[in-house]
Amino acid sequence: MELYVIDQDRDIRFQVQDGDTLLQALRQQDLYVTAPCGGRGTCGKCTVSIDGLGDVLSCKTRLSAELWQQAGVNPNAPLVVRMPERVRPQVSTSGMLPDLNLSPLVAMQDFVLPEPTLEDQRADDERLAEVSQLDVPYRLLRQLPRHLREQRYHLNCFYRTDTRTLLRLVRQDSPGPLGMAIDIGTTTLAAYLADLTSGRLLATTAMLNPQRAFGADVISRIEQAAAGHQDSLHQVLVRAIAELAGHLLDLAGRQENRDYKLEDIAHLVLAGNTVMMHLLGNIPADAIARTPFIPASVAAKTLAASDLGLPLLPDTICQLLPSMAGYVGADITAGLLATSLHLEAKAGKNAILLDIGTNGEIVLATPQGLVACSTAAGPAFEAANISCGMGGIQGAIDRVSDAGDDLSFSVIGQQGLETLLPAGICGSGLVSAIAAFLRLGLIDETGRITDEPEDLPSALGGRVVEADGLTRIELAPAAKSARGKAISLTQKDIRELQNAKAAIAAGVLLLLEKASLAPEQIDTVFIAGGFGNYLDIDDALAIGLLPPALRGKTRSAGNTAGMGALACLIEQELFQQARELASDITYYELSAQKRFTDLYIEAMLFPEADGV
Amino acid sequence: MELYVIDQDRDIRFQVQDGDTLLQALRQQDLYVTAPCGGRGTCGKCTVSIDGLGDVLSCKTRLSAELWQQAGVNPNAPLVVRMPERVRPQVSTSGMLPDLNLSPLVAMQDFVLPEPTLEDQRADDERLAEVSQLDVPYRLLRQLPRHLREQRYHLNCFYRTDTRTLLRLVRQDSPGPLGMAIDIGTTTLAAYLADLTSGRLLATTAMLNPQRAFGADVISRIEQAAAGHQDSLHQVLVRAIAELAGHLLDLAGRQENRDYKLEDIAHLVLAGNTVMMHLLGNIPADAIARTPFIPASVAAKTLAASDLGLPLLPDTICQLLPSMAGYVGADITAGLLATSLHLEAKAGKNAILLDIGTNGEIVLATPQGLVACSTAAGPAFEAANISCGMGGIQGAIDRVSDAGDDLSFSVIGQQGLETLLPAGICGSGLVSAIAAFLRLGLIDETGRITDEPEDLPSALGGRVVEADGLTRIELAPAAKSARGKAISLTQKDIRELQNAKAAIAAGVLLLLEKASLAPEQIDTVFIAGGFGNYLDIDDALAIGLLPPALRGKTRSAGNTAGMGALACLIEQELFQQARELASDITYYELSAQKRFTDLYIEAMLFPEADGV
Repeated sequence: MELYVIDQDRDIRFQVQDGDTLLQALRQQDLYVTAPCGGRGTCGKCTVSIDGLGDVLSCKTRLSAELWQQAGVNPNAPLVVRMPERVRPQVSTSGMLPDLNLSPLVAMQDFVLPEPTLEDQRADDERLAEVSQLDVPYRLLRQLPRHLREQRYHLNCFYRTDTRTLLRLVRQDSPGPLGMAIDIGTTTLAAYLADLTSGRLLATTAMLNPQRAFGADVISRIEQAAAGHQDSLHQVLVRAIAELAGHLLDLAGRQENRDYKLEDIAHLVLAGNTVMMHLLGNIPADAIARTPFIPASVAAKTLAASDLGLPLLPDTICQLLPSMAGYVGADITAGLLATSLHLEAKAGKNAILLDIGTNGEIVLATPQGLVACSTAAGPAFEAANISCGMGGIQGAIDRVSDAGDDLSFSVIGQQGLETLLPAGICGSGLVSAIAAFLRLGLIDETGRITDEPEDLPSALGGRVVEADGLTRIELAPAAKSARGKAISLTQKDIRELQNAKAAIAAGVLLLLEKASLAPEQIDTVFIAGGFGNYLDIDDALAIGLLPPALRGKTRSAGNTAGMGALACLIEQELFQQARELASDITYYELSAQKRFTDLYIEAMLFPEADGV
Repeated sequence: MELYVIDQDRDIRFQVQDGDTLLQALRQQDLYVTAPCGGRGTCGKCTVSIDGLGDVLSCKTRLSAELWQQAGVNPNAPLVVRMPERVRPQVSTSGMLPDLNLSPLVAMQDFVLPEPTLEDQRADDERLAEVSQLDVPYRLLRQLPRHLREQRYHLNCFYRTDTRTLLRLVRQDSPGPLGMAIDIGTTTLAAYLADLTSGRLLATTAMLNPQRAFGADVISRIEQAAAGHQDSLHQVLVRAIAELAGHLLDLAGRQENRDYKLEDIAHLVLAGNTVMMHLLGNIPADAIARTPFIPASVAAKTLAASDLGLPLLPDTICQLLPSMAGYVGADITAGLLATSLHLEAKAGKNAILLDIGTNGEIVLATPQGLVACSTAAGPAFEAANISCGMGGIQGAIDRVSDAGDDLSFSVIGQQGLETLLPAGICGSGLVSAIAAFLRLGLIDETGRITDEPEDLPSALGGRVVEADGLTRIELAPAAKSARGKAISLTQKDIRELQNAKAAIAAGVLLLLEKASLAPEQIDTVFIAGGFGNYLDIDDALAIGLLPPALRGKTRSAGNTAGMGALACLIEQELFQQARELASDITYYELSAQKRFTDLYIEAMLFPEADGV
């Protein structure tokens, strides 16, 4: 049995196994369909199209003679499968950066060596060491003799500035070492290319994390890894990083009108949550998924690309930022560097770094030190468990506002006066919608959808609809939706968000209690991550995600994980600082904190609406 | 075209390329025939047998339709080739060892870790570090989580005692770490297996260096490497080392009645001449072959087996002893350790270490320090360029003595009263023969074969024969030789030895002059290497290889290269000492020493015979 798969950039034809699911068969060919549930058939998002059959869920479609028959295809002919159109994620790659001193880990220098004679028979490595004070690693001894003689004892090289070790022999017209910073998000990968000689940022790019084919969240990924896919999860990630590298070199080359090559990349700094950091290294992460949530390692690492199995030049230095706990990862450590949170505290201020996602990671910095916790918000802020939820990509409702006596909304990708029909709602749209519902009386403080819609203005009241025995608040009717299905939020959708916001709010309050601080004493809250960029702070305050006392003190910090990694490329000393920050922080495991449950229950209620 | 090759342990059938030589075709299948000249067709030693044709020189036999025809074989049928019988080399693996303190680089220990809880969420590596003070390298993080949980937080491991780094997780009934010492000789490899816990030597073994298929001496090997075979030279060597490891484990297992496994080998110490050390690491050595004779590196190295491409467990620690110059290698450094030459000097004595082979390496230790030189003796001491020369294996004449008015000789492998016919003469036999020739007046001080044999006793005079216009001294007539060809030495053979002994003698005298010492002031001369074991010291003095003043001060030190490497396994500190010795030594390049030429010419004469 054979498939003929039509993907964005290529067609591919291959043999498949009778009885496999279509999702499995596609995966084996590195064709990745988004499957947030990890192929368990619960999310219904792994749709592909089969010619003759139309859209199917690839995880529920078994490859068999009957399938060929149903599609009207001769059993000896290939079944034609069309992959969904891939969407380049709308990922913010910008964000806060601290003041930086240019002091990279890798530098380039040109050396001229004295030629050997019968009176000076020193070996090649000693000869180089005398002029350069550089140690020659063993692997370079394979290249050194010929290189030296071909270049007549001139040597242009990259070397490590900290250990003064020769890193790479390079061409005479090398542009100098480049560094790459990578934020390995569960959903998206963001990458940055910097010129280490000038400290200039040359290019940025992003892509969806190909691991999403194994599930949307870290727990699904861990489960898939434990079920025998650990190596695949590792492989797709390292290949994606190589792809990002290629893309960055391309972008930078066009921008600068130079021919950058893979061999110019000498240094990588990588950040991501603890689970991503494990999967990157092909390290089992399953003990993180179950109590008491133990990682294999959270320490900072300086490795070679070959240690990670990264398909870059094997000697490329790869620095993994340290994590702090199973659920406070290297992305948060990087965030501390990007926001200089610890420096705020040293200056006598109290500041919070908040990263909102499936887990809400919270760090509070005070002059007494750093405390952190992670709170399981669930995927509501990514709209993954919301009936009409979708990622923050084109077609998603991202903001809901009052329009006289009704609701109105904006859609990502809408330009000018043209109307773009919505396809669903993303996380920031959800927060915004709930805030609007509260203001307009569509839901009450307990989150319950009004059972008296007739008391509301008629346009508004008309949005409360009953269908299939469920009450929903309709944002767009089927006729005005991109997919021909009404876009609405159910009572359950509202509860999901309510739980999520309570978890975050309770986490913030717990850390404040631990530090004996009132919300009023906080000077700044940095909201990290893509979500922070899109979230309307007023909406966040309106739903009680943050205490009202933080109004006016909250700022979006952008992709702090990527920025923190980038900062380490430019100023190597920051990597050492990250090591210290990660080891000095006090982490509170919320499942061991009874007080957290009380705070969580209190935070379930929405604040009284200040509008209407 | 197909060959069917019958080798000692296996038959193998494979396709070959029209136009290749038989030697090339065999090599490509890892079938190695000795070819001291490196396949240039000058040594005539790469004989194999073709059914239907008999013995052929494999380097001169081109694979073609005519060859099949000549052998009377159908062109579509395989040509049957019989490999020569392989001879296990008679290698001395014993030798001097210094007094040793047991302090190996790798030790085994069992640790019990506290189980994690919600109150103690430390990562696995930190948990281990607290109990053991061991660092966990990145690659072991892939195994650690499962191992810890399966073993219920008990952990039996090998670790590095110097850096306190975890090396390997091992089974509970592990016999503890084993160490392997290897002397990579140009001709033979000698290997030793030690129990690092007790310091006991468990087994020793040896094999011919499979690189001999690429030439007998280091220069041929370098030429072959430079001609595109560097990778092959590396590959055959590392595979041979893995083979030695397997053989040692077998021997030790039978001896101790235990089941030793490859994973029990944790540490290797390797010694060899500078060229062997380069080829081991797949490092270009061609600059060593031409003036000014520059190695890529002579420094001591601590590596992983994977860095060397050694097919052992990739984390096995491999220590390469330092070399001192292009022609004074790590084998000599190891010899310093084995003989404690530097300690003799510290105790106020003057001592010489002499390794006689194609190059004669000489180290003189005095209370003022160590000086060394290397002198190009050529292959005469290995009998490689001698008309009837052969290795020191079964069938070789190894000693020649006076028998009344005639010569007699002994043959290696001869047992009891049975007569073993000689097949050729080895190096020690050659020295012994020349000494006897001198004593008996068959040659004079200038090395000239007497032109008045009729003045000698008739049996003796009859040994001087003329054939093909050459004067020869016959040791055994064709009828009494294993190969049916007379065994004799030509005037040229005698000149080869004369040059060789002059080179060594002049080197010794030069170092004495540099240290302002007379031969009488030397306390001990250690003769290293296999040759030292077989050489009769009186013969050596008789031909003037050593100054007469050294009579009674000379001792055979055995395989000092292997013993020095073994010593480092048992007492790790010696590896550090080797590093210092190698960097402190003063090396004299003889080709830059005019005085050497004078001494060499003087040393060409044989001493006046003290016999007859």
